[in-house]
Amino acid sequence: MTNTIRAEVVTIGDEILFGQITDTNTQWIGTELTNIGIRIVRKSSVGDQAKAILEVLHEAHQRADVILITGGLGPTKDDITKKTLCDYFGVNLVRNPEALALVTGFFEKRGREMTDLNRGQADLPANAVYLQNDWGTAPGMWFEHEGRVYVSLPGVPFEMKHLMTNRVLPRLLSHFQTPIIRHKMILTAGIGESFLAERIASWEDSLPPHIRLAYLPSFGGVRLRLTATGVDNDTLGRELDEQVALVLPQIQQHVYGYDDETLESVVGRILTERQLTLATAESCTGGYVASRITSVPGSSAYFLGSIVSYSNEVKINQLGVKPETLQQVGAVSEETIRQMAEGVRQALQANVGIATSGIAGPDGGTPDKPVGTVWIAVATGQRITTRLLKLGQYRDQNIQLTTTYLLNLLREELLNQ
Amino acid sequence: MTNTIRAEVVTIGDEILFGQITDTNTQWIGTELTNIGIRIVRKSSVGDQAKAILEVLHEAHQRADVILITGGLGPTKDDITKKTLCDYFGVNLVRNPEALALVTGFFEKRGREMTDLNRGQADLPANAVYLQNDWGTAPGMWFEHEGRVYVSLPGVPFEMKHLMTNRVLPRLLSHFQTPIIRHKMILTAGIGESFLAERIASWEDSLPPHIRLAYLPSFGGVRLRLTATGVDNDTLGRELDEQVALVLPQIQQHVYGYDDETLESVVGRILTERQLTLATAESCTGGYVASRITSVPGSSAYFLGSIVSYSNEVKINQLGVKPETLQQVGAVSEETIRQMAEGVRQALQANVGIATSGIAGPDGGTPDKPVGTVWIAVATGQRITTRLLKLGQYRDQNIQLTTTYLLNLLREELLNQ
Repeated sequence: MTNTIRAEVVTIGDEILFGQITDTNTQWIGTELTNIGIRIVRKSSVGDQAKAILEVLHEAHQRADVILITGGLGPTKDDITKKTLCDYFGVNLVRNPEALALVTGFFEKRGREMTDLNRGQADLPANAVYLQNDWGTAPGMWFEHEGRVYVSLPGVPFEMKHLMTNRVLPRLLSHFQTPIIRHKMILTAGIGESFLAERIASWEDSLPPHIRLAYLPSFGGVRLRLTATGVDNDTLGRELDEQVALVLPQIQQHVYGYDDETLESVVGRILTERQLTLATAESCTGGYVASRITSVPGSSAYFLGSIVSYSNEVKINQLGVKPETLQQVGAVSEETIRQMAEGVRQALQANVGIATSGIAGPDGGTPDKPVGTVWIAVATGQRITTRLLKLGQYRDQNIQLTTTYLLNLLREELLNQ
Repeated sequence: MTNTIRAEVVTIGDEILFGQITDTNTQWIGTELTNIGIRIVRKSSVGDQAKAILEVLHEAHQRADVILITGGLGPTKDDITKKTLCDYFGVNLVRNPEALALVTGFFEKRGREMTDLNRGQADLPANAVYLQNDWGTAPGMWFEHEGRVYVSLPGVPFEMKHLMTNRVLPRLLSHFQTPIIRHKMILTAGIGESFLAERIASWEDSLPPHIRLAYLPSFGGVRLRLTATGVDNDTLGRELDEQVALVLPQIQQHVYGYDDETLESVVGRILTERQLTLATAESCTGGYVASRITSVPGSSAYFLGSIVSYSNEVKINQLGVKPETLQQVGAVSEETIRQMAEGVRQALQANVGIATSGIAGPDGGTPDKPVGTVWIAVATGQRITTRLLKLGQYRDQNIQLTTTYLLNLLREELLNQ
């Protein structure tokens, strides 16, 4: 068996430490490295100070075979990554002709003037292998130093992803012989982590030592991740499938999918298979349900549209909710949600209509209907199914949870038809 | 002047290393600690292994005065944080009566049965100060050890936030004397990082040494962060205001707000001030524009609703787009976007209508209209303003960029009225 290749991901930037940007890069990098069998042993973020960068590089050198660095390569003056890499490797900055040609071409193509700051982006540490960035002016760089590989990439997500996919991952695969690690993810909804754990305890205890289980709770669901390590890809795949088959009877009703699937992609697949169309009527979720549904490429095949009814007039005029219903029981009520789901189904001439109405917060609650009170409904033409949710105080969380519960109710209703 | 208090944030969990969950906690923690003048010097993530956890705790001890640990406290078997903390501090696990009462009460209140796994959540390292979690069964813990403060919190975001806000931040403030750090954020849209940097270079060079500038680019905009360090809060505030006043004339047209504002909150403020209502018609953004607008608490005061028209029929029936327009120039065209923006304005009886129509990708592009071709429009009753965007290949990014450009166009049109 080959040795495990260990990686450390280092992000550079005060803005990450201070919480001023959302770091989505390291999650993506984690998935990609895991997929090619490289084990991530540490993720670190440091600020834009030479001392802190040098310190983390020296530490990472002790722990990892690959050190993947993102950030700190933009054109502005607060970027010191390249200079610090020069200090670390004991080399000078050298203007790279390939990199310069790319920067020059980038600006010519767009008819924009090039600044000295832009030109400086073509200066690389002398030991760098230049990795061409097709999407921006910051370079990718590959270094080999004292038996380790160092990679430096810009922090802009789509430039980083392009460089990883097209330049770095192929190089890593050819540089290292990686062991085989396979994952299988079982996606559940509608059952809490501890109840799930009790239910599958004896199966979990009987797992062989080379297969590990982890519970990953998130809004409205728990994902079960099985990780198998070995030497043969097909064997591991078969072993994982066998374990899934063993546990499935105990949790079948809660499993909505596997691996990279999402509730919205699973719902989309069922709708496509059955040649059904969908429309949504949203009050408290404000467009988020439609946004989740349309995040799936190709969703226009089954999704017709949404009416976001943030005012009573829109509920009445666009969805056909009866004014007397709104007057008598209010917008957050079972009768209103029934009319919304059926109303949008008819207005948009869809097979299925789904709807949300509730009090997302932070204001608008009453003793009868506190913040977090939400109705959801699915109308299929045959019947209308409703649920009352009692959620929490946080607006964002209420919007996300409502959406997850509604998509899961839609899934159940489609499968029960 | 007091010494700088240095903090390290440690997250525990294989799922973070492997990229299987999005870590939003450390960004939030970064903001909160920065706001009370604690300087974050490192963020680290390690897996669920005792050795890795011990290693990072020993390292953090060298670097930081406060070590803030999140994750690894759930009820399932893959959690080893508490045991490892016991090893690190040289103490045993002890059942905490307060914590047990809380766990018991939590389950009684919900009428659910308690499992042994749940009961085990009340076992804490003997040297822990128990921090009561009002939102879940995992405890918060505060330790003082060899001149450092250690805090351990659950990884579930709303439980962590509750514990930080109500238990940890007040304790940190009373435990340490922190220096004063103030930030001022200038938010810009519609100008690239390097052009912005050239324009304000002489101002940047003349900044006093205790005020630092950073460029934070994100989708469709660049944020300028000024950070001032000193001893007097009012003096720093005044100095930051003076610097903003100095730079503003050079970038005025691109500045949409300051600090925690967002394009959607700024647009909401302008609409509220002018007592105008807004409606949106969305094709390629699929509800995301409405979702951004309604993420602002209180947006129901000016936002009436949205019609997400993912099919031509919805464009015709709900928005009044002419069938012959769709037939002659297609859905992604200037004429269609004009009719969508004006159509939703009239259909929902709003003062202002905004619209998007484009090819988000990955499929649906043609040689004439490649993926990334997007039209946006703002209709105010007086006039309709349109823009053609030429974006990239990535669906998510196209949806986000379109939304940002549309909200900025709306802001400009409102200010130009």
